[in-house]
Amino acid sequence: MAEGQEVPNKQVVLKRYVTGFPTEDDMEVVAGIARLAVPPGTPGLVLKNLYLSCDPYMRGRMTKHDPPSYVADFVPGEVLENFGVSKVIASGHPDFEVGDLVWGVTGWEEYSFAPKPESFFKINHPDLPLSYYTGILGMTGLTAWAAFFDVGKPKKGDYVFVSAASGAVGQLAKLTGCYVVGSVGSDEKVNLLKTKFGFDDAFNYKKEPDLDAALKRYFPEGIDIYFENVGGQMLDAVLLNMRKHGRIPVVGMISQYNLKKPEGLSNAIMILAKQLLVEGFLVFDHFVKYRKFEEEMVGFIKEGKISCVEDIADGLEKAPAALIGLFSGKNIGKQLVVVARE
Amino acid sequence: MAEGQEVPNKQVVLKRYVTGFPTEDDMEVVAGIARLAVPPGTPGLVLKNLYLSCDPYMRGRMTKHDPPSYVADFVPGEVLENFGVSKVIASGHPDFEVGDLVWGVTGWEEYSFAPKPESFFKINHPDLPLSYYTGILGMTGLTAWAAFFDVGKPKKGDYVFVSAASGAVGQLAKLTGCYVVGSVGSDEKVNLLKTKFGFDDAFNYKKEPDLDAALKRYFPEGIDIYFENVGGQMLDAVLLNMRKHGRIPVVGMISQYNLKKPEGLSNAIMILAKQLLVEGFLVFDHFVKYRKFEEEMVGFIKEGKISCVEDIADGLEKAPAALIGLFSGKNIGKQLVVVARE
Repeated sequence: MAEGQEVPNKQVVLKRYVTGFPTEDDMEVVAGIARLAVPPGTPGLVLKNLYLSCDPYMRGRMTKHDPPSYVADFVPGEVLENFGVSKVIASGHPDFEVGDLVWGVTGWEEYSFAPKPESFFKINHPDLPLSYYTGILGMTGLTAWAAFFDVGKPKKGDYVFVSAASGAVGQLAKLTGCYVVGSVGSDEKVNLLKTKFGFDDAFNYKKEPDLDAALKRYFPEGIDIYFENVGGQMLDAVLLNMRKHGRIPVVGMISQYNLKKPEGLSNAIMILAKQLLVEGFLVFDHFVKYRKFEEEMVGFIKEGKISCVEDIADGLEKAPAALIGLFSGKNIGKQLVVVARE
Repeated sequence: MAEGQEVPNKQVVLKRYVTGFPTEDDMEVVAGIARLAVPPGTPGLVLKNLYLSCDPYMRGRMTKHDPPSYVADFVPGEVLENFGVSKVIASGHPDFEVGDLVWGVTGWEEYSFAPKPESFFKINHPDLPLSYYTGILGMTGLTAWAAFFDVGKPKKGDYVFVSAASGAVGQLAKLTGCYVVGSVGSDEKVNLLKTKFGFDDAFNYKKEPDLDAALKRYFPEGIDIYFENVGGQMLDAVLLNMRKHGRIPVVGMISQYNLKKPEGLSNAIMILAKQLLVEGFLVFDHFVKYRKFEEEMVGFIKEGKISCVEDIADGLEKAPAALIGLFSGKNIGKQLVVVARE
């Protein structure tokens, strides 16, 4: 493919700002055009996008924020973006060559122009499935690893509870010698946690009318670390069941993203009574640790100590449905979209 | 007074467990008897109580907790207890002599028997008002100092907001070079903060129908450290106004102690969006730092860098009203009860 040629470029654009639960119709797949050249004198990259990650935090970007949120809002009529795996097909930057495999924030489209190449990581282990760099070896894996170890400060024997637990955290906790229980939204996922991921126990929160009672059953001694992905009623029930000096890394609150009015949290006083540490964690400040994380996690994967389950949507046309599916828990394991395999 | 003699001993006892707002009638001042001798072969102290501290956390102890709370519930029919300043009048412990001035947890009565002398600190600076050891040099001062510096991690130029702000924290923040605003419940206290305590600004929260708007007015750049004493709606408004990586040491939530159902916290998602650290702080684990704290705070007081305002109720009979007054904000400055002056 000659550099500089213009090619069709399928794109996923936001149609309108969203309130409440997003639908596929809030997005549109359109036929764009990409020019496969770096503008002369600029240091950017032209990327062919291979795998795109679907992440719950994207919901926040579909709403207009004033004042601005921690990450820029999407713009109606413009292409969505998120972390993904791409191949460099034209480079204006000395550190990147045509053919390099990279991961970073790219467009929900077939080809993207990346004006800031330094925000991309080269993929050091292309012998592993490239798609892993959308999840377990990408943004969500780094989030799990850094938030669990830096904020959670796990010790052997700690009681660890993970909500929306089909990611890496529970497995990292098991490797650390913790007692680990996860909550998920289907019996199939419960089975995944108990058989493939090695959790000590797991439950389907949709079958638990009383979350406090469920947690008391699974953690009669209480919880040392709650890895928070969901917020709302689950957090409220967890607060009642934390142990003294427990830690709560907060990396997501997916149950709240589509509510017009958040659920009120009633048990905040437990933060005081139990001397809890609750800390919000966003990955953006932690990319400096990426190479250390990558080597450690690659080691775990190659030794078979960490398993990764992926839910792969095939083609950009499926991207809107894949993203929406996160909020009903349709996906089993990491949800991603394959745009092209190489 | 001969050791071993029996003397009348006025006492404040809890009449019944409390629900909702406590009243004076939930307590009773009764005529007891004290025997001024240490039982032979035991290491206890007989204390003459001089000053007793009134602290909001005592409200929690007036309710029956199952499972137990972080501190033992009071028992109906038994004497209340809390931090106070006492004089040793009989000692079975080699480290304590008759005449020593100490502070620690003692009974709300004229004379107490302390079976565990090692839980008391000797008062190293009796040249300062002894009553200071119920507050600025006692439990609440240590709480302010350790929670502000250890959890708040203040830096020069930080924007600091303190609720129920008539204690030491705001002054410590000013000494650290922070910009400090406090909220209190009367114009008289606003005046105290601005004139005597050197706050940059202060407001009467009872005159602010929209706390979010008030905080935006006082902190157009946002808040780096919120020193949390009150909880509820104030915390909810503060969460909207925190800056990225802000810290919230939680040492009290006085607005919630008398509610049958806590106010729901709506803005917990800000903990994530702003990467906040929220940490509950109870002083019990921090007494190991007391001597360092005492010397530093005594230095500040003697140099005139920290002022202390006390609200002194005269006599045990006034103790129930003094305690209840905390919850309507009747007190100006540290509320304490003088039982005897020497």
